[in-house]
Amino acid sequence: MPGLINCHTHAPMVALRGVAEDLPIEEWFNDVVWPVESNLTGRDVELGARLACAEMIRGGVTCFADHYFAMDAVAAVVEECGIRAHLGEAYFSSQGPRGRERSLEFALRHRGGAGGRITTALAPHAPYTVDDADLTATAELARTHGLPVHLHAAENRDQTDVSLDRHGVTPIEVLRRTGLLDTDVLIAHGTGIVERDLAVLEGATGRVAVATAPRGYLRFAWPTTTPIRALNDIGVPVGLATDGAASNNSLDVWESMALTALIQKQTTGDPRWLTSRQALHHATLQSARAVGLGGTLGALAPGRRADLVLVDLTGPHTQPVHDLAATLVHSARSCDVTTTIVDGRVLMRDRELLTLDVPAVVRELGERMPALLDRGHGRRIQDYKTGKPA
Amino acid sequence: MPGLINCHTHAPMVALRGVAEDLPIEEWFNDVVWPVESNLTGRDVELGARLACAEMIRGGVTCFADHYFAMDAVAAVVEECGIRAHLGEAYFSSQGPRGRERSLEFALRHRGGAGGRITTALAPHAPYTVDDADLTATAELARTHGLPVHLHAAENRDQTDVSLDRHGVTPIEVLRRTGLLDTDVLIAHGTGIVERDLAVLEGATGRVAVATAPRGYLRFAWPTTTPIRALNDIGVPVGLATDGAASNNSLDVWESMALTALIQKQTTGDPRWLTSRQALHHATLQSARAVGLGGTLGALAPGRRADLVLVDLTGPHTQPVHDLAATLVHSARSCDVTTTIVDGRVLMRDRELLTLDVPAVVRELGERMPALLDRGHGRRIQDYKTGKPA
Repeated sequence: MPGLINCHTHAPMVALRGVAEDLPIEEWFNDVVWPVESNLTGRDVELGARLACAEMIRGGVTCFADHYFAMDAVAAVVEECGIRAHLGEAYFSSQGPRGRERSLEFALRHRGGAGGRITTALAPHAPYTVDDADLTATAELARTHGLPVHLHAAENRDQTDVSLDRHGVTPIEVLRRTGLLDTDVLIAHGTGIVERDLAVLEGATGRVAVATAPRGYLRFAWPTTTPIRALNDIGVPVGLATDGAASNNSLDVWESMALTALIQKQTTGDPRWLTSRQALHHATLQSARAVGLGGTLGALAPGRRADLVLVDLTGPHTQPVHDLAATLVHSARSCDVTTTIVDGRVLMRDRELLTLDVPAVVRELGERMPALLDRGHGRRIQDYKTGKPA
Repeated sequence: MPGLINCHTHAPMVALRGVAEDLPIEEWFNDVVWPVESNLTGRDVELGARLACAEMIRGGVTCFADHYFAMDAVAAVVEECGIRAHLGEAYFSSQGPRGRERSLEFALRHRGGAGGRITTALAPHAPYTVDDADLTATAELARTHGLPVHLHAAENRDQTDVSLDRHGVTPIEVLRRTGLLDTDVLIAHGTGIVERDLAVLEGATGRVAVATAPRGYLRFAWPTTTPIRALNDIGVPVGLATDGAASNNSLDVWESMALTALIQKQTTGDPRWLTSRQALHHATLQSARAVGLGGTLGALAPGRRADLVLVDLTGPHTQPVHDLAATLVHSARSCDVTTTIVDGRVLMRDRELLTLDVPAVVRELGERMPALLDRGHGRRIQDYKTGKPA
C-alpha cells in the first residue's frame, strides 16, 4: 500500500518521549518541555531526528511534515536516511524578526533538497505565540517566494475562547485577517475550530488543509477533537499526524489512523462515520494533499513517486481477512510493516533498517541526556498562556 | 513483567473479525453476528479458540476470561496450548432452563482443569437476555457450588435507560434483587453504570469486579465509558479486556491498556487521571482480582504463579526510556513482547509460538468460512432490543 504520511510532528522530540507525563498542557510546556528545549543543541536535534526517522520508517511512514528548531540538522538526516520530508524552521515572535528571517532562509535553502525529497514551508509557531504583524509578514513572504505555511492554530477550544476574549476573533479568523488563508496553509490540530470558522475556511483562496493527531487530544483531556466531518463537508483535506513524541509517546501513524476512526465515531455519535476506507483515504491521499504533494504521493499509480510499504497480514491478529480495509486499520499494527520504500529505494527490508544505526544513536543520546534534561537554570522559552518571554 | 490478563472476551469470535464493520450494535447483532453464530459448530469454536490463543500469547496475554458457546472446545484448546483461562458457557433465557443447566455442568466439569490453569464461572449472557427467574436461579447455583458468575451488565447507557423504563430499576439493581451481588461476580463493560448504582455495588456482599474494553465503546459510538474513577473510589477492581474480535478487531490487551488511560483522561477531563502506573495496575493486579485470582497472579513475587512476559524496549519507538511505566503503556506495543511464559512454561520464545500452528488453523478456518458466514437461512439467535427469540 502507499506509505503513510505524518502530516505534523516535531521529530527530534522523540528525545523527550516520556519526560512530561500526565500533565495539563500548560504545565507540560512551562514546567518541562520549554525549560528542556532551552538546552537543545544541533547535535541533540540531529540524534533525535535519526531516532525519529528510524521509528517512522519501521512504522511504514514514508514522508513527514516537521516543525521544529535547528532544522538544518533534520534536513541532513532526511538526506542521509532516504525518507521524504516537508520541513519548516519554527519561530516565535519572542525571537524578534530574526526568527521569521531564519525560517525563510531555511525554506529557500532546502527547497527541493535531497534529490527532491525535501519540500519546505514557512513555520510560524501559532497565532498565540506569533503576533499579527509577524503573521502578516509571513503571508507576504509566502506569496513572494511561492512557499506554503505550516503552523499550529485553534489547537484546542480554550485557545479559541481566549482569542475571542482578547481579540474578538477566533484563531482561524486571525489567519484570514493576516492573509495566511490566501496562501497554501497546513493547520495543525484545529480541535478548536468552531462553527463560524467553517465559512472562513471555505472562503480561503489558498489551499488549506488540517492535520489531526488525536492521541494528544485525549492525553491532554481536551474537550473536542478535529471536526473532520465538518471539514470534509467543505472540502478541506485532513491529514493524519502524531505530533511530537513528548506528547504522543510515539510517531505511530498507524495508531493515528485507528484512533481517528474510533474517536470520530465516538464524538459524532455515529458508528457509520468514519469508516476504515475513509481512514485509509485520510492516511494516504488526503495526507498527501495536506503536505502539498497530492499529485505526487498517496496512491500506487503510474506517475506517482514509489513511496510504498509491504504489510504482513499472516499474523494471528490479522486473520482471517474479511474486510481488507478493516484489517489494515483496526487489526494490523505498525510493526506489521515489513518493508518500506521511498522514492524507489528500500529503507527497511524484513524489519531491518538499511540506512540508520539505532544502537549508535541511542547510545550517544543517552550520554547527552543529563545536559538536555537539566532544568536547574530556570530558563524557559516563553510562557504558554501569554506567549511572552518567560 | 506479569503477563496481561484479558478479563472479558469471546475468543472464538476472532473467526468473525471484520465481518460487521461500522454498524450500530443493534444491526451488528441482529443482521450479522447472531445470524452467523446460528451456524457455529464445535469445530469452528475450536479453530477460533486456537487462533485467539495464538494472538493473545503473541500479545503478552497469559490468562483470559472467556464467555461463549461450545466451551468444551475452548477448554480443550486451553489444555493443549498452555495458556490460563477463566471459562464460562454462555446462555440466554431464550434457550429455556437447559441453557443454565449446561452452564453449570460446564463449570463443574472443567473447574481446576488443565492442571489448575482453568477456573470456571456461570455465564448468563446479560440482564436484557436472561430473565430475573433465571438470574435468581443462577445466583443460587453459584452459592451452592461455590462458583463465580461472569456476565454482561449495564453495557451501555441505553440499556440502563431501557431497564429503568421497563422495570423501574437499573441493570445493576437487577443484579442485586436477583442475588447476584451476593456472589462473586464479574461484570463486563458497565458503561451504563449510573450514580445510583454505586451505592448498590458498594453494598454487595460478594466480590464484585468490572471488566472494561474501551475500544468497542468508541466503535459503537456509545456516549460513556466504564466509570473507572468512581469504581476505584468504592474499591471495585476494574480489569482490562478486549471483548470479542468481531467488535474489537483484535485481542490486544496492550492496546486496551493505553486506550483505558487515554479515554479516562478525556472523559474525566483530567490529564492527571489515569496515569501509566495506574494503567499497569489495572492490567495486572486489578485484572487478577477481577478473574478471582488476586492472590495468585498479577505480580512477580514468591508464591505467585509464573505467568510473565519479556518485553523488548530497544526499538526506536521505545527509546529513550525516561519513565518506564509510560514507555510500557504508551510507547510499547503488543508486538514488543518477545517471550510469554504461563505457569512456568514457555509458550512463545523470540516471537515464535511453541504450542500452536497458526497456518494450519488459518487454512482450515478459511475452508469453513462459506458455511459459517451463510446468512441465507434467515435465522438468528434472538432479537437485540427485546431479547426474544427471533
